Amino acid sequence: MATRSWDVGILGATGMVGQQLVRRLEGHPWFRLAWVAASERSEGKRYGDTPWLLGGSVPAYARDLVLDKAEPGRAPRLVFSALDAGAAGPLERAFAEAGRLVVSNARTHRLADDVPLLIPEVNAGHLDLLPTQRAARGWSGAIVTNPNCSTTFLAIVLAACRPFSPRRVIVTTFQAASGAGHPGVASWDLLGNVVPFIDGEEEKIERETRKILGTCTGRSVMPAPVAVSAQAARVPVLDGHTEAISVEFDRVPEEAELAAALGGFTGLPPEAGLPSAPARPIVHLREPDRPQPRLDALREDGMAVCVGRVRRCPVLHYKLVALGHNTIRGAAGAAILNAELLVARGWAGGGGRSWS
Amino acid sequence: MATRSWDVGILGATGMVGQQLVRRLEGHPWFRLAWVAASERSEGKRYGDTPWLLGGSVPAYARDLVLDKAEPGRAPRLVFSALDAGAAGPLERAFAEAGRLVVSNARTHRLADDVPLLIPEVNAGHLDLLPTQRAARGWSGAIVTNPNCSTTFLAIVLAACRPFSPRRVIVTTFQAASGAGHPGVASWDLLGNVVPFIDGEEEKIERETRKILGTCTGRSVMPAPVAVSAQAARVPVLDGHTEAISVEFDRVPEEAELAAALGGFTGLPPEAGLPSAPARPIVHLREPDRPQPRLDALREDGMAVCVGRVRRCPVLHYKLVALGHNTIRGAAGAAILNAELLVARGWAGGGGRSWS
Amino acid sequence: MATRSWDVGILGATGMVGQQLVRRLEGHPWFRLAWVAASERSEGKRYGDTPWLLGGSVPAYARDLVLDKAEPGRAPRLVFSALDAGAAGPLERAFAEAGRLVVSNARTHRLADDVPLLIPEVNAGHLDLLPTQRAARGWSGAIVTNPNCSTTFLAIVLAACRPFSPRRVIVTTFQAASGAGHPGVASWDLLGNVVPFIDGEEEKIERETRKILGTCTGRSVMPAPVAVSAQAARVPVLDGHTEAISVEFDRVPEEAELAAALGGFTGLPPEAGLPSAPARPIVHLREPDRPQPRLDALREDGMAVCVGRVRRCPVLHYKLVALGHNTIRGAAGAAILNAELLVARGWAGGGGRSWS
Amino acid sequence: MATRSWDVGILGATGMVGQQLVRRLEGHPWFRLAWVAASERSEGKRYGDTPWLLGGSVPAYARDLVLDKAEPGRAPRLVFSALDAGAAGPLERAFAEAGRLVVSNARTHRLADDVPLLIPEVNAGHLDLLPTQRAARGWSGAIVTNPNCSTTFLAIVLAACRPFSPRRVIVTTFQAASGAGHPGVASWDLLGNVVPFIDGEEEKIERETRKILGTCTGRSVMPAPVAVSAQAARVPVLDGHTEAISVEFDRVPEEAELAAALGGFTGLPPEAGLPSAPARPIVHLREPDRPQPRLDALREDGMAVCVGRVRRCPVLHYKLVALGHNTIRGAAGAAILNAELLVARGWAGGGGRSWS
Repeated sequence: MATRSWDVGILGATGMVGQQLVRRLEGHPWFRLAWVAASERSEGKRYGDTPWLLGGSVPAYARDLVLDKAEPGRAPRLVFSALDAGAAGPLERAFAEAGRLVVSNARTHRLADDVPLLIPEVNAGHLDLLPTQRAARGWSGAIVTNPNCSTTFLAIVLAACRPFSPRRVIVTTFQAASGAGHPGVASWDLLGNVVPFIDGEEEKIERETRKILGTCTGRSVMPAPVAVSAQAARVPVLDGHTEAISVEFDRVPEEAELAAALGGFTGLPPEAGLPSAPARPIVHLREPDRPQPRLDALREDGMAVCVGRVRRCPVLHYKLVALGHNTIRGAAGAAILNAELLVARGWAGGGGRSWS
Repeated sequence: MATRSWDVGILGATGMVGQQLVRRLEGHPWFRLAWVAASERSEGKRYGDTPWLLGGSVPAYARDLVLDKAEPGRAPRLVFSALDAGAAGPLERAFAEAGRLVVSNARTHRLADDVPLLIPEVNAGHLDLLPTQRAARGWSGAIVTNPNCSTTFLAIVLAACRPFSPRRVIVTTFQAASGAGHPGVASWDLLGNVVPFIDGEEEKIERETRKILGTCTGRSVMPAPVAVSAQAARVPVLDGHTEAISVEFDRVPEEAELAAALGGFTGLPPEAGLPSAPARPIVHLREPDRPQPRLDALREDGMAVCVGRVRRCPVLHYKLVALGHNTIRGAAGAAILNAELLVARGWAGGGGRSWS
Repeated sequence: MATRSWDVGILGATGMVGQQLVRRLEGHPWFRLAWVAASERSEGKRYGDTPWLLGGSVPAYARDLVLDKAEPGRAPRLVFSALDAGAAGPLERAFAEAGRLVVSNARTHRLADDVPLLIPEVNAGHLDLLPTQRAARGWSGAIVTNPNCSTTFLAIVLAACRPFSPRRVIVTTFQAASGAGHPGVASWDLLGNVVPFIDGEEEKIERETRKILGTCTGRSVMPAPVAVSAQAARVPVLDGHTEAISVEFDRVPEEAELAAALGGFTGLPPEAGLPSAPARPIVHLREPDRPQPRLDALREDGMAVCVGRVRRCPVLHYKLVALGHNTIRGAAGAAILNAELLVARGWAGGGGRSWS
Repeated sequence: MATRSWDVGILGATGMVGQQLVRRLEGHPWFRLAWVAASERSEGKRYGDTPWLLGGSVPAYARDLVLDKAEPGRAPRLVFSALDAGAAGPLERAFAEAGRLVVSNARTHRLADDVPLLIPEVNAGHLDLLPTQRAARGWSGAIVTNPNCSTTFLAIVLAACRPFSPRRVIVTTFQAASGAGHPGVASWDLLGNVVPFIDGEEEKIERETRKILGTCTGRSVMPAPVAVSAQAARVPVLDGHTEAISVEFDRVPEEAELAAALGGFTGLPPEAGLPSAPARPIVHLREPDRPQPRLDALREDGMAVCVGRVRRCPVLHYKLVALGHNTIRGAAGAAILNAELLVARGWAGGGGRSWS
C-alpha cells in the first residue's frame, strides 16, 4: 500500500475531546489536521489563542489554524465530531449529506438503526450498515459513532468474554472529572465527594453495550442478549473511569481460562495495522490493587482497557475491575481508531489501506 | 427509671475511632469518660497532649485524662475498644475475663460463634448469646462487637428490606480515607485516584452481613440465607462510605412499597430511648443526585444511613445508593449505641434502664 | 434593653453566601428572616426548592419562603446583599434610596468615599460616614459593606498589631473553592492544582486593607499608611483561606509582646454584646503546624481568625500564618455582625441596643 | 569526543526520588544503570518486585536488577544517592572515601564548607571545591549535592536576576505531596487542606540559596549577600512546587528588562551539551493564570522552572510566581544533570567530555 495521507477536520475543536483529538493527531502517520471549527463565537480565532485545557500548550503544529465556520463546504472529507449532543444532530447530518465522513463522539446518532456504534476490535463488521445508511438517507457521506466512554471499556471486556457468552452484567462506575467536559462539574461539588448520578449515563451503558455486542444484519443491529445494570458516579479523579463489574456467563470458564481470554484478546487481525490500535486492547494487571486511574489510565498510550482483580463472584459468576482513559480510549482515541478503520476499509477514498 | 450514669473507658483512645468516641461521649447523658488507654508508648501522657486528628481541638473535658496502662484492673466496668485488630484479640479477652464489658469496634471477635455482632435496630436479640459466651469462656465480663463500617450500612438497608426477603446482593463501595485510620493511606496514593482494593474488606462485608441478619439460637447465630458480593474501593473522600447496591428479593415489592419500608424503618421500639439512636435509622433522600458523602454523612448527627436513587435493576430487582458516616454510624457511634443497649438491657449493672 | 427583633431580608439568597446567611440567621436572637430575593428566573420559587449547596438540607425554617421580586418596596428595612458585583451596584443603591439599610458583601461600593468598609472589631467608628452618605446621596437608607474575605483576615491581624504600627506587609493567600461562589472554579481546573491568579483579588487586598485601617474624618476615610503586597492563589480546599503574612513595623515588638497583642485582641468592648461577635476575634494556635483550613476554619463558630507560626522574618520583622472561614467570617458572618452593630448603634430603628 | 558510557548506581533506589532516577536513566545517552541498593530489608529483591510508585510499571530495563548491599565495593564509580538524610551521612562518606563519586540529593552534606551545592546553570564553578574536599578528607572519591527542591527553583530565578543584584527575597511555597516522599503525608491530613509547616524546609530555602549564589574561593563558598524569608506549606497537589516570590534589587530593572533576563537565562554555554540540560532553564509563561503545577510542571521534560505573573510589588520591587517539578528539576533530574557536569568536566574519568 502506498503511503499517503488524508486531510481531516474537527467539529468542536475547542472542548476537552476536541483538544485531545488535536493532541493525538500530531504526527499521525495517515491524517493531517487541516480544518477546525467550534461554536460561532470562536469563528475567526486562531486556534492557539483559545484556552488550552490539557497540560502544557497548544501543540505547535495546530496553533495557526483558524477556527472556521461549521459548514460542510469548507471541511475536508473526513471530519471528527466532538460536538455536544445538542449541536451534533443537525450539524452531523448536514455534513454527512454533503459528502463528509463524520466520525462522531456525540451520543446523538449512536442508537440509530443504520449508524454503526463502532469499536474496531469488537464489531468492525458493523460498518456493513453504511450502504444502508447512505441509501436510506440519500447521503453521499456517512456517520460513524464511537460509544460512550464507560460503555466502551465494558464492551471491550465483554467482547473478550464472548467465548463464555456473558448474559447478565452489573457494573458500578467511578468516573473522572474530564468526562463531564469543561467546565463540567464545579470544584465545590466534587472536591472530597462522590456524586452518585450522571445524567443519562446509566441508560447509555445499558443500551449501547447491547448494540455494540449485537449482530449486524446489514440493515440494522440485533442487540446482544445481555442484560446490563449500571450505577454511575463521579469521583474526584482527573482522567480515567474505573468500573467494578460482575458478570454471569452461559458457560462458566475456569479462572485461568477467563484470564487468558482477557489478556489475549485482540479483536483486530494484526495485519490491520491501524496506527492507533493498541498492541493489547486489554492489559491484565496482576497486582492486587490495580488498575488505578492515576497509575494506569495511560497504558498503551491511553488506548488500553486495564483489568485486574479477576475473581469469583458469590452472586454472579466472576467479578473484576476495569479501567480506561475516558477522553482517549473513551473518546478522541476511539474516534481516531474508527477513522483509521474507515480508511483501511476504503471508505475514505483513495483505495483504502490493504487490509479489509 | 432513675437517672444515673456509668463510668466508661476507652482502649485505643488516640486513634481515629478512639478520638471519635471521645468526641461523642462529651456530654453523653448516661456515660462519663473516666479512663483512657492506648499503646505503651503513650502511657503517662496527658490526653490533651496527643495529636488530635479531628477538627478543632481535644474536647476540654478530656484534656486532663492521663493515658493509663491497658490493664483491666485499672478500667471501669464498661470499656470501649477501638484497638487495631492485632492488639484487640488478647487484650479484649483479658478485659472480658476480668469482668469488663468490652464494646468493641475491632474485627477480631466479630465472627466468633458466641459473640454478638450487634446493630441495635437490626438484631438486638443477638444479645442472647451473652450467657453462652460467659459460660463457655468462664468470663465474668463479655465482648460485644459492632460490624465493619461498610457492612453496617448495608445490613441496615437489608434489615429494612426483610419484608421482601433479600436473597442476593451485589455492592460496590466508595470508601473514605478515615476508614483506613491514621496515617492510613498515603496522600500520594489517594489524591486524584481510586484504589480498588481494601485488604479483607470485601470478605467482611460478605460474611458479617449474613451473621448480622441471621437467627440467634442462643448458642450461636444461623447465618441468613443471603448471598452478598462486594467490591470495595478507596476514594479521595474524608468521611462517609457510599455504596452502590443491587438486590434480588424473594418477594418483589412495588417501588413505593420498598421506599416505604426503607424510610419507615425503625428497628428499635421508640420506648427504648437509647440516647444515640437516630430518629430515623434510614433517611431516604429524593433528590436525583443524593446521597453524597460530603453533604449527607452527618445527617442525624452521623447516625443515619442515607439512601437514594431507589429504582429497578435490569439484572437483580432493585438498585439504590446508600451512604453512612464510617467513623460514626460505622464505628464510634455504633459502639456507643451498642453500649446503650447493654445498659438498657441491664447488662451494665445498676438494674438497667426500664426498656428491655 | 428590651428584647425585640428585626425583620431582615436577603438579596441574592440562593448563592453560596446567601445560603450561608440563611443558615446563620436560623435561631438568630435579634433577626427574623422575612424576605428573600434572587435573580429574576428564581422569582416565585419556594426557597426550599432551590438547590442547596451546603451540607444537609435547606433549614426547615426557611423552606417555605418564596423568592420575591428584588424590589425595595417589598423588603424589610434591614436587607443583606449577597449579590454579585454586577447586580449589586444599581440594586443596592435603589434599596438604600428607598430607605433600606443595605448590609452588603458585594465589592461594588466598598471603596466609595462615603461607604463604611466595616469590621466591628476594627473600625466601628467608620459608621460615622453614614450621615454624610445619606446627606450627599439624598437617601433615607444607607449602604454598609464588609470587606473581601482575604482582606478581612489580614485586617483583623493588622488591627491587633496597631500598637506596633505595621507599615509594610507581604501576604500570599491559599484560597478555598467556596470563595469563587458556585459553580465557581471547574473541578478540572482545581483538582490536584494551584491556580495562582484570582481576578481582582490582589488589588482588593491591597486597597481595602488601607481603608479599613484608616482614619475616619466623618466625610471620608484617610487610608492608613501601610503598604500591602498580595499574591492570591486558589487551592483545592473547600472552605477557609490561609494566608502567609510578613510584616514590618515602626516599632518592633518582642515576640511575646506580639503574641500577647494577637491573642488578646478584642476590638469590641464586651458590653457590646453583639450575638455573632466571637469571644476571641483572633485565636492563637501554638501547635507548630497550625492553623489548617480543614481543622481550624470553624473555630468560634467560623468567626475567628486563627493565627499560628508567629516568628521572626529575616526580611521584614515578623511572619505568621493566618486563616479565616471565607464564607463566614469573610462574608455571611461578617455581614450579620455588621448588621448587629448597626442595630446596637440605633441605625436599625427601635432605639437600638444599649451599647453605642 | 568519543561516545562512551559510564556505569552508574543508585543508593535509595526504591523511594520516590530513587524511582524517578531509574525512570530518567532509561535510555540515557551517557549513563547505564548497573547497580541499585536500598535499605537492608530490600536486599536480594528483584527491583521489578518492589512497589513502583510512579505511573505505569517499573521500566523494563531495570526490572531484573537485584537490590544489592549498600557497600562501596560493589558499586560503580558514579553513584546517585537518593537516601534519607539520616542514612545519607555515614553511607555517602563511606562511598566517597572508597573512591566513589557520590551525586547526592540528600540534605546531609549540602552546607558543608567543602561540598558543592550545585546547579550547573547557576554555579558550575563551585566544582572547584572538589580538590579541597578530597585533600581535606583524604578521599579518592567525592560528594556533590543538589539543593532542596524549593530552593532550586528560587535559586534559578535569582541567578537569572543577577544583573540586578537581588538583595531581599520573600517566598511562600505551595508544595506537592511527592516532596514528602512515600508514604509521606497521610491522605487524611492533606485532602482538601493546607498544612502550613514542613519541618526544616524554610531554613533550607533561606540558607541554601545564599550558598548556591555565593562566591567560591576554592576552599569554601562565601554566601551571597541576599536575605531570604520563606514560608512553606504543603498543598493537595501531586507533583510541582509553586512559589510566590517578591524580590528587592540593588538596581531596579524595567519590567521588560527583567522579563528578558528571566526568559533569556541560560547559565550553561550551549557547547556544554549536557543531555539533561533544558533548552531554556526558565520558561516565561505570559498567560495571566500560569504557571500551574498540573499543567506546567512537566515542561522541558520536567527540567524547566516556569515563571509567570511578573509584576511590580508594592513593598519590595517585583513579584512573580515560579514553579518547578520537585522530583525532577528539584531532585532526580537535578542529580543527573550534576552527574553530567561531572562527566563533562572530567571528574568521572575517561578524559571527560570535550567542554569544560
